[in-house]
Amino acid sequence: MREVRRLRVLLAGYGNVGKALHQMILDQGARLAEETGVRFDMVGICRSSGSWCSDDGLTPDDLVIDARQDKTVQDLIKDGVADVLVELTPTDLKTGGEGLGHCRAALQKGMHVVTANKGPIVLAYPELVKIAKESGAGLRFEATAGAAMPLMNLKEFCLRGDRVTRLEGILNGTSNYILTRMGEEGLEFAQALTEAQTLGYAEADPTADVGGHDAAAKVVILGNHYFDLGLTLDDVAVTGITEVTGEAVQLAMKQGFVVRLVAAVDREGHASVAPRLVPLASPLNVPGSLNVVRLYAENAGPIAVSGRGAGGKETAAAVLSDLIAVARAS
Amino acid sequence: MREVRRLRVLLAGYGNVGKALHQMILDQGARLAEETGVRFDMVGICRSSGSWCSDDGLTPDDLVIDARQDKTVQDLIKDGVADVLVELTPTDLKTGGEGLGHCRAALQKGMHVVTANKGPIVLAYPELVKIAKESGAGLRFEATAGAAMPLMNLKEFCLRGDRVTRLEGILNGTSNYILTRMGEEGLEFAQALTEAQTLGYAEADPTADVGGHDAAAKVVILGNHYFDLGLTLDDVAVTGITEVTGEAVQLAMKQGFVVRLVAAVDREGHASVAPRLVPLASPLNVPGSLNVVRLYAENAGPIAVSGRGAGGKETAAAVLSDLIAVARAS
Repeated sequence: MREVRRLRVLLAGYGNVGKALHQMILDQGARLAEETGVRFDMVGICRSSGSWCSDDGLTPDDLVIDARQDKTVQDLIKDGVADVLVELTPTDLKTGGEGLGHCRAALQKGMHVVTANKGPIVLAYPELVKIAKESGAGLRFEATAGAAMPLMNLKEFCLRGDRVTRLEGILNGTSNYILTRMGEEGLEFAQALTEAQTLGYAEADPTADVGGHDAAAKVVILGNHYFDLGLTLDDVAVTGITEVTGEAVQLAMKQGFVVRLVAAVDREGHASVAPRLVPLASPLNVPGSLNVVRLYAENAGPIAVSGRGAGGKETAAAVLSDLIAVARAS
Repeated sequence: MREVRRLRVLLAGYGNVGKALHQMILDQGARLAEETGVRFDMVGICRSSGSWCSDDGLTPDDLVIDARQDKTVQDLIKDGVADVLVELTPTDLKTGGEGLGHCRAALQKGMHVVTANKGPIVLAYPELVKIAKESGAGLRFEATAGAAMPLMNLKEFCLRGDRVTRLEGILNGTSNYILTRMGEEGLEFAQALTEAQTLGYAEADPTADVGGHDAAAKVVILGNHYFDLGLTLDDVAVTGITEVTGEAVQLAMKQGFVVRLVAAVDREGHASVAPRLVPLASPLNVPGSLNVVRLYAENAGPIAVSGRGAGGKETAAAVLSDLIAVARAS
């Protein structure tokens, strides 16, 4: 029998991803301990309404009003209740929001950080890497770009010794769903957007998705991870899909193309998000809300990875993979 | 400055892959040392005509008749000249050929083995894993299925904690090229095969490729790596593409499908290779000599990876990635 190591997890944010992760750890805990040698205990959960703590590990049934505390994420980091912070508070691409402060504080204390929150990684990647190095803590963010697609680990573990020169991909499922429907059904942008909102593929305020800003944030994250470029959002040339007409989409299809919101970054620092014509047979032509990234490696040649770029369970899967990596490295 | 570790490499087999790997190590050695902390020295090279050795590392210019020795791979393994054996002798799926003996001897001596030779892994995976465990040596075989596609590392490093239930893919570039050309140009099988042979995409004896046996070997390797099934070639139900008619391919296209040689294996041990109808929009519809694998993970959902499944440089890229992994783990 291999030795099982215990990892105490503090969860900041308890929406779809947090709940899915919590349930995954509870349902799959025994198998995970056996297969990975790590036992996860959810020792702290913080949401806007308050926080809950138990060194024995919390279940959803424990999150009752009577047991609620007023401690903040910052308090619990200071108290040292956990080995790793899972940062899932809402993304704020302007200030980094609370999440940025949480990541800073945890890393400074030598606590590992696993985050699905793009804000801190987009706005402060070089700073956070520096703090992590100094304190010896792990910092992982697989879920921040492409959710279930293992883009960060691909670079770190699968292309060892190779040099990637360029990445391009479809990194926003909402835009891709809308463009797919405009092509399939001859819809105009506004019609397809309404349909996407009705079906839950688009938010009430879709600006970040259809304006290309969500994809741009992922370009910054991937560009910095793959090429160490020190990119910021201002470095990405962004055009959204709001001006794409049904007529243009139909015309493209007649010529063997689809229109897709393509995100791209290369090692020279050229970074962009824009609607582009993509050949029907291209790996970038993924349907519906799927995501895809095609990268070019000097030795291995082109490699494409597609998968679900959103979803509570899919994002939680990436967070879980990071938690295991952090535990195994520490 | 990080410490640079030296890894002495013994190369068995010096065809396209061996030459590409040798050149890669010479051309990219300085960068590799800096980025990965490993310096590779090609201390021994064995080919059918003889062998060459130098503890300082060999260049292609050193492989002259005057310096040639009669030592075999087995002799050099016994002499302990290297830390890792790179096994690239010709694949023999019936007996394992010389390669199987090389892998056994090296692992028994505690020498790491990195192989692109399918024979030993298809025929003796459980045995080789056992020897490797006992001696503490590393055994890696990323290049044996899908060349540049990182299928083994994907399981090991990118889907930690997840459970893959099923894999399916296009694992033979020659068949895929022939089927693609039959679809595009309305060719019959024999015509497309001749074209593929003329262009170097098919060998003079194409049986292993068009008969499905090459893909079946990869199914065995993937099934054993992903699901620990102990599969052998006899467990794979194999149908090749030699009976596929131009008429069938054209009829399929009219209904929105392409015909593809699909390899599949699931965790219950169902394993098959057969021509199947694949929807035009499916990730399995890759053109020409590309390869693709789509896997289904319980948490992450479906993930597809495509890339070049053959080629000297592409295969060498996977071998190099394994060499770095072996050095980092040891």
